[in-house]
Amino acid sequence: MTLKTTMNKYRLFAPGPTPVSEETSLAMAGPIIHHRTEPFEKIVAEVREGLKWLFQTKNEVLILASSGTGAMEGAVVNTLSKGDKVIVVDGGKFGERWWKICKAYGVEADVIQVTWGQAVDVKEIKSRLDKGGYKAVFVQASESSTGTYHPIREIASLVKAKDDCLCVVDAISALGAVNLPMDAWGIDILITGSQKALGLPPGLAMVGLSDKAWKAAENSTLPKFYFDFKRELKNVQQNTTAFTPAISLIIGLAQVLREFKKEGLENLFARHARLAEATRQGMLALGLQLYSSSPVNSLTAVKTPEGIDAQKVFKILQTKYNMTIAGGQDAAKGKIFRLAHLGYYDDLDVVTVVAAVEWALAELGHKFTMGAGVGAAMKTLREL
Amino acid sequence: MTLKTTMNKYRLFAPGPTPVSEETSLAMAGPIIHHRTEPFEKIVAEVREGLKWLFQTKNEVLILASSGTGAMEGAVVNTLSKGDKVIVVDGGKFGERWWKICKAYGVEADVIQVTWGQAVDVKEIKSRLDKGGYKAVFVQASESSTGTYHPIREIASLVKAKDDCLCVVDAISALGAVNLPMDAWGIDILITGSQKALGLPPGLAMVGLSDKAWKAAENSTLPKFYFDFKRELKNVQQNTTAFTPAISLIIGLAQVLREFKKEGLENLFARHARLAEATRQGMLALGLQLYSSSPVNSLTAVKTPEGIDAQKVFKILQTKYNMTIAGGQDAAKGKIFRLAHLGYYDDLDVVTVVAAVEWALAELGHKFTMGAGVGAAMKTLREL
Repeated sequence: MTLKTTMNKYRLFAPGPTPVSEETSLAMAGPIIHHRTEPFEKIVAEVREGLKWLFQTKNEVLILASSGTGAMEGAVVNTLSKGDKVIVVDGGKFGERWWKICKAYGVEADVIQVTWGQAVDVKEIKSRLDKGGYKAVFVQASESSTGTYHPIREIASLVKAKDDCLCVVDAISALGAVNLPMDAWGIDILITGSQKALGLPPGLAMVGLSDKAWKAAENSTLPKFYFDFKRELKNVQQNTTAFTPAISLIIGLAQVLREFKKEGLENLFARHARLAEATRQGMLALGLQLYSSSPVNSLTAVKTPEGIDAQKVFKILQTKYNMTIAGGQDAAKGKIFRLAHLGYYDDLDVVTVVAAVEWALAELGHKFTMGAGVGAAMKTLREL
Repeated sequence: MTLKTTMNKYRLFAPGPTPVSEETSLAMAGPIIHHRTEPFEKIVAEVREGLKWLFQTKNEVLILASSGTGAMEGAVVNTLSKGDKVIVVDGGKFGERWWKICKAYGVEADVIQVTWGQAVDVKEIKSRLDKGGYKAVFVQASESSTGTYHPIREIASLVKAKDDCLCVVDAISALGAVNLPMDAWGIDILITGSQKALGLPPGLAMVGLSDKAWKAAENSTLPKFYFDFKRELKNVQQNTTAFTPAISLIIGLAQVLREFKKEGLENLFARHARLAEATRQGMLALGLQLYSSSPVNSLTAVKTPEGIDAQKVFKILQTKYNMTIAGGQDAAKGKIFRLAHLGYYDDLDVVTVVAAVEWALAELGHKFTMGAGVGAAMKTLREL
C-alpha cells in the first residue's frame, strides 16, 4: 500500500494555493525591477488589459498587495456606510467571512443561512430585495469550503433591477475557472486572488468595480486607507499602484495572463469543466458521493462513506503520497475531502489524485475495485 | 560618455525595492507548498524566531501579506479609538502618511512639521508629552524621502515614561540596517517591509508589539478586519497566519534570516554604516552636499549643485546605465537624488553607483576630477 520508492514528488491539489508553472516561477525569479519605471509600467499596462479581458469588463481592475480577504474588506469599506443594511449569503466559511467583515464595520447584515453544500435559493434573495432598503448583496461564486456554485447570473439580474443596491461577488476560487462575465451579467464588484485559477503564489488580490459600484463609492463614509479603491483607481489608470506593489507576483501575473489569452476564455472554462467532471466521475465510481448539490468546476468536495474519517484520507495523501488536498472545515470536518482542479493542473493530474485517493480508501477499508475511479476519470477525459 | 557596450546589467539601488540575491530568488522559485501543512508551519516557526531576533524583542512579530503601509494602518487601528489624540512627526512623505492614516480613522493628529532633511527636535515631542493626553507618538526611524534618521532611542525613552502612550516606529527602510533594539529602547510598535534591508520582493510587512501596545489593543475600538493584530497574534503563535500568507515571500524571508543570522546583528549594522559612509564620502569628494543633517545608514540623499537638475542625474542613470536610483519627491524634486545601500548590495556596488553618478554629472557639466568620488569611496571602504 506504500509507494515502493524513495522519490516522492510534491503535488498540491488544494483549493488554493495551487501549483505554479515552471515558466511562471522562472519569470518571477528574474531580477526585481523598480515599480516607478517604464519597464514595470509597461507590465502593469499589459496586466490591466489582461485583467479587463479575464473579468470581462470595460472598467479598470484594481491590483492589491494582499490576500483575497483584503479585497473583500475593500468591497465593504469603499461602497458602504455605518448602519447600511445588506444581504449576505452564508453557505460556508467564506460566506461567513462576509458578515464578519460587515460586523467589524457596523454594517447590518441580513444573513441568509444556506445549508452547507447547497446553493442559495434565489427566491430568498428576491423576497428580501422586494422589501427594499438593502445596499448590497454579498455572495460567493465558488464557496470553497463546500465546493458549491451559487447562481450568480440570477442573483446579479435581480440586483441589477434595484437602484442603489450592489451585487458583490467573491470569485476568489472561481474567476478563470467559471464563466463570470462581469459587465454582461451586471456584477458590481468581482474579486479574485492570485493563488487559485491563476496559478500564482498568494499575495495579490484583484477587484473590478462597475459604474454603479464607483457611484456608491462616492457616498461611502466607512474609514479606509490601505484599501482605498478610489486612490487605487487613479493610480492604475497611470499604470501604477498607490503603495509598493507585489512586483514579483505582478510579473508572474503578466506571464499567466499571456498563457490564458493563448488558451482563450472559452477553452479556459471548458478545461475546468472537463477536469471537474472527470474528478466527479472518478469519485462516484468508487461509491462516494459529492458533497455539493451545485458543484462548482473549481473544486470537488467528496463525502466519505459512514465509518471512514475524511481527515484520514487527507492525512494519508499528505504523509504517504506527499500530496496536499483539503479536508472539511467546521461541521464538515471528518465528513468530506476537497480536490481542486486549479492552477497549473492537467488531465494526468486528475489521474494521479484519483489514484492516490483510491490507495487511501483501500487502506481505510473501503470496498471497491482498485482502478475503478481512475478508469471512470480516464473515460470522461477521453470523451469530453 | 556612453557605455561602449551592448551588455548593460540592470542595477537596482533605490530605497526599495532592493536587489534580491540569486539564492533567495531560487528559494522562492521552488514549488509552492500549502500553508496549512507541517513543512510550512516549520518555516513559520523558524521565521518567528528569526524575526524576534532581528526586532530584538521577546514578543511575537506578526507577518502580514501587504506592503508596509498596511502595517502602518494596522498600528493605528489596533491601538487607538476615534477622537484619540496623537503626536505625528512629519519630516517627509512617510511622516505625512502617518497623519493621513490618522485622519482617515478620525484620530486627531498633532503634527510636528520638521524641515525636510532634518531630524525632529526631541524637545518638541517632550513639551507636547508633558502637556499630556496623547495616546501615541508616530515617527519614522528612516524617513526614506529625505534620507534622515530620527532619534528613536531618545523619543522612545520619553514615551516610555508616560503611561498609556505608545512609541510607534515606521522602520520600513531602517530595520536590519540600523540598530533598533525594540525591547531595550522601549519601542512599542516596530514596523518593517520585505523590500528594503531584507532584500526580498515587496508584498510582506512585519510588525512587532510591546506588552504596552498589546494592552492598548484591548481598549481600541477602531474598526479592523484584515489587519486585526489580535487575530494574527493567535495565529502566529500556532505558526500560521489568519489569512492566506504570501507563501513564496515567507520562504524567501526564512532564507534571508538564515543569512542575517550567520552575519550577526553587529556586522549587519556595521556593514550598512560602512556602505553609507563610503557613499557619503564619494559624494562629498565630488563637491556635492548631503541633503540630510542626520543621515541614515539605509540611504544617502544628495543635493545637486545649483544649476544641475537632480532629475536628470536620475534619468541618465536609468536610461544610459540601466541603474535605478531615486529622485526627490515634492519640494525636493529636481534638487536631490537618493542612493540606497540596502538588500543584496556590497562594497563594489558602491563603486558602481558612484562611478555612474560621476559620468552623469560630467555629462551635465559639473566640474570635478573624474574618479575623485570613486577614489574617496574606495579609500573609505578600505579603511572602515
